[in-house]
Amino acid sequence: MQNDKTKITQQETDFSKWYLDVIECAELAENSPVRGSMVIKPYGYAIWENIQKFLDLEFKKIGIQNAYFPLLIPKSFLEKEAQHVEGFAKECAVVTHHRLEEVDGKLIPAGELEEPLIIRPTSETIIYDTFSRWIKSYRDLPLLINQWANVMRWEMRTRLFLRSSEFLWQEGHTAHELALEAENMALNALNLYKRFLEEELAISAVPGKKTENEKFAGADYTLTLEALMQDGKALQCCTSHMLGQNFSKSFNVSFLDKNQTQQYVWQTSWGLSTRIIGALIMSHSDNKGLVLPPRIAPIQVVLIPIYDNKDDAVKILDKIKNIAEDLALNNIRYKIDDREGRPGFKFFEWERRGVPLRIELGPKDLMKQTVVLVDRLEGNKVFISDTNITEVVTYELQKIQLKLLEKSSSYRLANTHEVDNYDELKTVLQSKPGFVSVYLCKDLNCEKSIKEETGATTRCIPFSETEGDGECIFCKNKTSIKLLLAKAY
Amino acid sequence: MQNDKTKITQQETDFSKWYLDVIECAELAENSPVRGSMVIKPYGYAIWENIQKFLDLEFKKIGIQNAYFPLLIPKSFLEKEAQHVEGFAKECAVVTHHRLEEVDGKLIPAGELEEPLIIRPTSETIIYDTFSRWIKSYRDLPLLINQWANVMRWEMRTRLFLRSSEFLWQEGHTAHELALEAENMALNALNLYKRFLEEELAISAVPGKKTENEKFAGADYTLTLEALMQDGKALQCCTSHMLGQNFSKSFNVSFLDKNQTQQYVWQTSWGLSTRIIGALIMSHSDNKGLVLPPRIAPIQVVLIPIYDNKDDAVKILDKIKNIAEDLALNNIRYKIDDREGRPGFKFFEWERRGVPLRIELGPKDLMKQTVVLVDRLEGNKVFISDTNITEVVTYELQKIQLKLLEKSSSYRLANTHEVDNYDELKTVLQSKPGFVSVYLCKDLNCEKSIKEETGATTRCIPFSETEGDGECIFCKNKTSIKLLLAKAY
Repeated sequence: MQNDKTKITQQETDFSKWYLDVIECAELAENSPVRGSMVIKPYGYAIWENIQKFLDLEFKKIGIQNAYFPLLIPKSFLEKEAQHVEGFAKECAVVTHHRLEEVDGKLIPAGELEEPLIIRPTSETIIYDTFSRWIKSYRDLPLLINQWANVMRWEMRTRLFLRSSEFLWQEGHTAHELALEAENMALNALNLYKRFLEEELAISAVPGKKTENEKFAGADYTLTLEALMQDGKALQCCTSHMLGQNFSKSFNVSFLDKNQTQQYVWQTSWGLSTRIIGALIMSHSDNKGLVLPPRIAPIQVVLIPIYDNKDDAVKILDKIKNIAEDLALNNIRYKIDDREGRPGFKFFEWERRGVPLRIELGPKDLMKQTVVLVDRLEGNKVFISDTNITEVVTYELQKIQLKLLEKSSSYRLANTHEVDNYDELKTVLQSKPGFVSVYLCKDLNCEKSIKEETGATTRCIPFSETEGDGECIFCKNKTSIKLLLAKAY
Repeated sequence: MQNDKTKITQQETDFSKWYLDVIECAELAENSPVRGSMVIKPYGYAIWENIQKFLDLEFKKIGIQNAYFPLLIPKSFLEKEAQHVEGFAKECAVVTHHRLEEVDGKLIPAGELEEPLIIRPTSETIIYDTFSRWIKSYRDLPLLINQWANVMRWEMRTRLFLRSSEFLWQEGHTAHELALEAENMALNALNLYKRFLEEELAISAVPGKKTENEKFAGADYTLTLEALMQDGKALQCCTSHMLGQNFSKSFNVSFLDKNQTQQYVWQTSWGLSTRIIGALIMSHSDNKGLVLPPRIAPIQVVLIPIYDNKDDAVKILDKIKNIAEDLALNNIRYKIDDREGRPGFKFFEWERRGVPLRIELGPKDLMKQTVVLVDRLEGNKVFISDTNITEVVTYELQKIQLKLLEKSSSYRLANTHEVDNYDELKTVLQSKPGFVSVYLCKDLNCEKSIKEETGATTRCIPFSETEGDGECIFCKNKTSIKLLLAKAY
């Protein structure tokens, strides 16, 4: 699995090409022969495993249980919620047969199904059909379920991690007695994601609400976290939906309340997918390759022995193993790179792959009882005493983590613009990267016209925006809605 | 998600019905509206998570990396390995369209694909197509990859866990320079599974080799672990395949060796699925419901407070929480059941759900500074001092674990029969549960005739059988192959 690719296109030259080069050089993923589906390579998958580990633990802390539901969804299920089917029918993989049969030496589909089955684009319908049997009384509520799964949406234009036909995700699905409980759950899920993005991925995103036009097909409203990539385009990191009683009415998910009255449950769903790895890459990486926040990095420190002769080799490797053992005791994820080959190549490789810290140990260091510590982010090279390596490494990893979050946050703030009128909006959207904060009315035409004329979409109505009095940037009618516009992934 | 079902069919009356009742009462899984696909409920999924945790850690210890490959496989890939396609074409879900379109108010499949895609029944083809690009030189070997995924085989007769159209599994795929390395890997994987079965699931299975007739479609040979369920039928717990160069030749997975010669790699694949949960249930459970070995049980100890008045309630719950805290410190998985309702109902529920130990604490216990400890397996009820609960619990859990393995092992040995001739074989297969050990020649007809006439299949040639001289039980020709026959799941 050695990687021949070494040259990375400069971000400034072609951001999109740079993105794909970083993925290739870091060996995160690759396109597969199946249109729109990707192969997630071990290093990319290890990042996903770290994401899973954090989220899964947090979900369990608040009483959410994992379960697993069928991959295939009957067409009739999808049709039960009118908005929902409209949102997903145009791009779904349809299973129509259940075997292959040889005819004239060729294998053709045979055994046609009575009803076509859809590979889940999301699992609301199949899960709520199940909920309708699980939930009978208020005692069964709240029901808090999560599923780790693959889903499929037949995207026409695909890009590794960001948009692929098949992707991996978790989808939370909850049912509650009261509307307010569901609203709290939707908000709690978003807050949990926000904390995850900040603490683990060092991504500072704006929490807010989607407009009616951009909400999930079948939701009352949708909450979102919107981040800004280094090219100034926005990326929706995850969503959390207040589903109200839309699905519970379609799927008859009801319960007997304390007063023996039959009621429909209030529901939420929320998800985060492998798309977030695209956001992670585009938030921090640079022209040398991938940059990973330490807390999510599969390898936090790479240790590289440097020697010319066998005598040194033994001593140096011994010492490196001692250092590594101490790192392991402190839960620091390390790798010893003792492959054949010149150290320079190794430095270069781990730099491209975004390992936050590198420790070099050569004969001179051995004598001086020091090691060389190099950080990926700024390339600083320092000699440190070999007596407290773990302490220094721990401290440096924390520093890098904070620095990345700070960078993400200040980039976003510096690239959030205010404008006074529509002409200025168009100029800003064309000339400056980032979000533009504007007043917009509820008329769908205004939102659609802006999209058509500028290419920008509404990202969210930030929670931080208090309701004020403004004029719609497009039609100048009065409105209290202030939201963020941006070109987006 | 409360469970109305309380009555479990007796094992002796109808084993198959008993099995389904145990699953229902323990809330492990249920049939879904999608033919042959099941819903794995939270408690069943928690068992799967424990299985994953153990195996994933062990895989990583020996250098196996996780990755993820596409769900959909081009038909042409399946066709590349002749035996392989024959093995899977008859029962696979075929995707033929990529959207639904409204025609006369009805949604029908539209956007027909140029080439049909198959939902993976297993991933050899798509993974080895990828390996052909990843592997270039001997330096890229061995390549050790594992995938946690869902797969689909369109089974006509399905049964929860044992045989479902969609199931979850892990599939290991490795590529090696030398045949011997691949053979070792196939054997190591089997040994790892064996240790897992014994240590975690308390299942004593026979390791051995499948006959030519029963091997995996596309393998040189297949290794297996065969266990005996309580009804005397055998169950294949997992398999490990030496693939030789069959796939590497079909998919051109080759490398430049140290002498600059192009060589095909030697490959293995091995997998264990949610089917093993079926084996787990049928190995240990009884007429009261599920029995779980402590090491795999999602809940190892359930703590039940017993009180009539509020004063007691506070004190008792406090004490129970203290006990639980100490259990948690010792990594014992517990649940406090402080729901409303009579203790008797709770005892009954957790018994059906297979929790190994129950601790009861009432006002009298509080006074006497004791608790009541009841084990699920034998129903023994003992009073123990509250000063060393964690020690006693730890010891009891270990004891139960060993007892279950011992039971499994002695049941298997007691039900492995020797016979002298074909008539005796038929009698034994009809009258006694278990394995029958016989000599069988390599003539496929003998194996097929036995299957047709008795319903029994060859399970494996046990590793423990040294080559001897015998006569084929069917045709009486000389043979050195001694193997196990049984009726099987």
